Amino acid sequence: MKLEGLSLLGSGRVQPGGAPQTAVESATGVALEPKFYWASPADVDRAVKLATAAFGEYSRWSPSRRAGLLRRIAELFEANAPALIARANQETALPVARLQGETARTCGQLRLFATVLEEGSWLDARIDRANPARQPLPKPDVRSLLVPLGPVAVFSSSNFPFAFSVAGGDTASALAAGCPVIVKAHQGHLGVSELTGLVVQQAVRDCGAPEGVFSVLFGPGREVGMALVKHPVIKAVGFTGSRAGGRALMDASAARPEPIPVYAEMGSINPVVLLPGAIAQGPEKLAENLAGSVCLGVGQFCTNPGLVLVENSAATEVLLQTLEQAITAMPAGTMLNENISAEYQAGLKKFAQLPGVRRVSGTPVAGHNRATPTLFITAADQFLAQPELMTEIFGPCTLVVRCASRPVLLAVLEKLEGQLTATVHGLPEELAASRDVLAALANRAGRVLVNGFPTGVEVCPAMTHGGPYPATADGRSTSVGTRAIERFVRPLCFQNFPENCLPDELKDANPLGIWRLVDGKLEKD
Amino acid sequence: MKLEGLSLLGSGRVQPGGAPQTAVESATGVALEPKFYWASPADVDRAVKLATAAFGEYSRWSPSRRAGLLRRIAELFEANAPALIARANQETALPVARLQGETARTCGQLRLFATVLEEGSWLDARIDRANPARQPLPKPDVRSLLVPLGPVAVFSSSNFPFAFSVAGGDTASALAAGCPVIVKAHQGHLGVSELTGLVVQQAVRDCGAPEGVFSVLFGPGREVGMALVKHPVIKAVGFTGSRAGGRALMDASAARPEPIPVYAEMGSINPVVLLPGAIAQGPEKLAENLAGSVCLGVGQFCTNPGLVLVENSAATEVLLQTLEQAITAMPAGTMLNENISAEYQAGLKKFAQLPGVRRVSGTPVAGHNRATPTLFITAADQFLAQPELMTEIFGPCTLVVRCASRPVLLAVLEKLEGQLTATVHGLPEELAASRDVLAALANRAGRVLVNGFPTGVEVCPAMTHGGPYPATADGRSTSVGTRAIERFVRPLCFQNFPENCLPDELKDANPLGIWRLVDGKLEKD
Repeated sequence: MKLEGLSLLGSGRVQPGGAPQTAVESATGVALEPKFYWASPADVDRAVKLATAAFGEYSRWSPSRRAGLLRRIAELFEANAPALIARANQETALPVARLQGETARTCGQLRLFATVLEEGSWLDARIDRANPARQPLPKPDVRSLLVPLGPVAVFSSSNFPFAFSVAGGDTASALAAGCPVIVKAHQGHLGVSELTGLVVQQAVRDCGAPEGVFSVLFGPGREVGMALVKHPVIKAVGFTGSRAGGRALMDASAARPEPIPVYAEMGSINPVVLLPGAIAQGPEKLAENLAGSVCLGVGQFCTNPGLVLVENSAATEVLLQTLEQAITAMPAGTMLNENISAEYQAGLKKFAQLPGVRRVSGTPVAGHNRATPTLFITAADQFLAQPELMTEIFGPCTLVVRCASRPVLLAVLEKLEGQLTATVHGLPEELAASRDVLAALANRAGRVLVNGFPTGVEVCPAMTHGGPYPATADGRSTSVGTRAIERFVRPLCFQNFPENCLPDELKDANPLGIWRLVDGKLEKD
Repeated sequence: MKLEGLSLLGSGRVQPGGAPQTAVESATGVALEPKFYWASPADVDRAVKLATAAFGEYSRWSPSRRAGLLRRIAELFEANAPALIARANQETALPVARLQGETARTCGQLRLFATVLEEGSWLDARIDRANPARQPLPKPDVRSLLVPLGPVAVFSSSNFPFAFSVAGGDTASALAAGCPVIVKAHQGHLGVSELTGLVVQQAVRDCGAPEGVFSVLFGPGREVGMALVKHPVIKAVGFTGSRAGGRALMDASAARPEPIPVYAEMGSINPVVLLPGAIAQGPEKLAENLAGSVCLGVGQFCTNPGLVLVENSAATEVLLQTLEQAITAMPAGTMLNENISAEYQAGLKKFAQLPGVRRVSGTPVAGHNRATPTLFITAADQFLAQPELMTEIFGPCTLVVRCASRPVLLAVLEKLEGQLTATVHGLPEELAASRDVLAALANRAGRVLVNGFPTGVEVCPAMTHGGPYPATADGRSTSVGTRAIERFVRPLCFQNFPENCLPDELKDANPLGIWRLVDGKLEKD
């Protein structure tokens, strides 16, 4: 696989055009080879036309054939992992060990969707049999299942160059659903995007899929990205990134003649409530674990715990002292890219200037894109009075809010926006007695955790990685876990169809052996 | 039950205020008693506050308790059916027999959702068990299910004063999901709305539900309706009506600080393709059945067949002659209200003035809100050149488009917008050979029918009454059938929760005995 710096259009490449762009090594700022070229509006149009042409055939592929494509992508990704990891390490400064783990996760996701396709219950196949003798009117034969929406635009995230990027969860779930995918590559890891694109392109070829099922476009979000979202044949959008970026896509979709679903995962501050019993039981250990979660991966997770709520007590003082020491002692890390590093510094500066907010951090370290772990401490009344404190600082940083009492804690929770996650630490008996806290967290989050930390999102059928706005554009969706496939489908109903015109999933004999709701009862045989 | 002309706020009534409004008898234009009063912005705010207060308790009601509320509404609706039907007949001119059928459908819907709640698979409960020994990281315990979004605003439709109104499908599915409902009553049947509101209010009281779980507000959509949609605590909107009205709600939602899902069913022209073999087999019978579907209920169905596509042949001439005779012979009917009647007349006038469009209709009949069944006939090139012909005329009217060949027919299909339904009539062998037609219809409709007519929407688990925009705001949803409940929920995930803090649906022992996806496999025990 050789980098050419060119967008991938179906089975081909875009010709170079416009000013050449430079990819840089995050840890040094040094330019990397080759130069990259942005896609033009005409390229966007060609990619979309290819995707439309591919949809007719690909949407009718059998589940097992689609599963084969996903598995082939995983195989080729693994086969090319050394090159992918090396380039990702250069472009994002993420450590090799982390990137090895992310390789496993990315390939695991692809294979998980393959098993989902073969298991088949996700299709929600339903059959209501006819009853010609029913009075006063005969009952028709009505059947339905979920069908793909059409071509999907996927916007890669910066912080997972594999798992939320070109062949990441959005791409895997959209391809699984039967939708062609056009990826708008993230500008922070252009080389990885091209390499991954080549892997998928090869898999598409190997599996005999129509070429337009997959393209990767390089270019700025405001131009290439917006052209995609506004294109009439694009039927859904997947995005992981900033709130401003996600909202811009939502607004662009809402202004289309035909609005389309936008699934934007926009991050959150992921509140962690530490109940008094949990603190008293072991304040030092809790503080150390918390500091570890805050600084994991240089704090560059959407689920990073950016807000910690504690009630005041003697043990709370011990917890906070330990937390100060732990955060101060944490080594500085290199952030993903210059934009993210600059925004982290700006966020720290903004918080530090607010009244009633104390800042604790280690000594800054020289070096490109270096982030110093930082702790802020404030009181509930200051927090409630300054809504800026509810905004996310993306990086190794958290804000502790001291609450004088349980009612104050609940008042703070009531003010929080929608969140990806919310966490509570408590002893068994205090959890059972804290239904009010659990309910307040559940009302505003997509995932609630007990006695754990939100970083680390398990990829499994029950996972939700999504939450009420503004954590995600659409709190009814998740971008991690097998429910992610449901974002790209709609129900289609067949009335009085002859058996030979029905899709296999809805034929009387159930040739695919999938679970179906027949006359209101789930059955498989 | 005595009409007072006042909105219902929880267990109480709004005080009269502003100018009194008059309900009229549709068939005569005569004013009906009593006067009605519009809700004020303060009333909207009170209703929303009551709904918010109710959500905490009602969202935690067990499925069987919610089922009890739905069944009680159905019982009381039936007990009060004579009064409801009498008033509906006056206000909408719908015949008593039709309203009796609609009573059965409305109560059937409520009871169907009760059974859905008890069956439980709609909750999509999932359990992924922990594996502390997993390498390199332990696997956490992750569980999830669908939970209600919050208070829902429901906009009643004009054409189903029971089944898509105050206690109709949107209300039933939202209450089933665990969401409080605030209905913006349709101005075309104020008295029915108040009577139905009293029925639901009584059921809420009988079942001990928090009063704010249900309110009914009278007033104009642009004021009362918009105030509801813009209110920050409203979390979803259900609507059945015009495209302009639905799009206004979509745009208002998109402009909110927190956009919310809008489920607007905005009607469509429901293309019917008559393949040559089906025509040749019995052109007269087919024409008569088609005329019957076009004129059923004075054509006032969202699924009314407003577009008929035929290929030219000798049998097609027989079909069209019979259709002309049948439409001309159909009696005029009284429409729902003056607005709808005036729009029908305007629609007829617009089509009749277009070049290349021939109009056939019987003699107009004198009387209030009377609609004369009408047929328009044009050729494919005229249709393709004049997009106005793709707009819906709500009423007993259809447009036949003659296509010179199969490619022309397909070209017409490719130009059609999203539809609620699409129908094809064909002989078994010609259907099997017409995959192109079936695929084109399936790509732009929520329901595809073979050898039937789209009017008459079966209420059953497999039904889809929704379709790609502009048929509905959100083609991923349906407003009829049990999937309608999915519009008002989101997935919520619980990680490492102690058993006693989990909802019953996710407890190890499965106390509710529902279907659950456990470690990726559906099971019930």
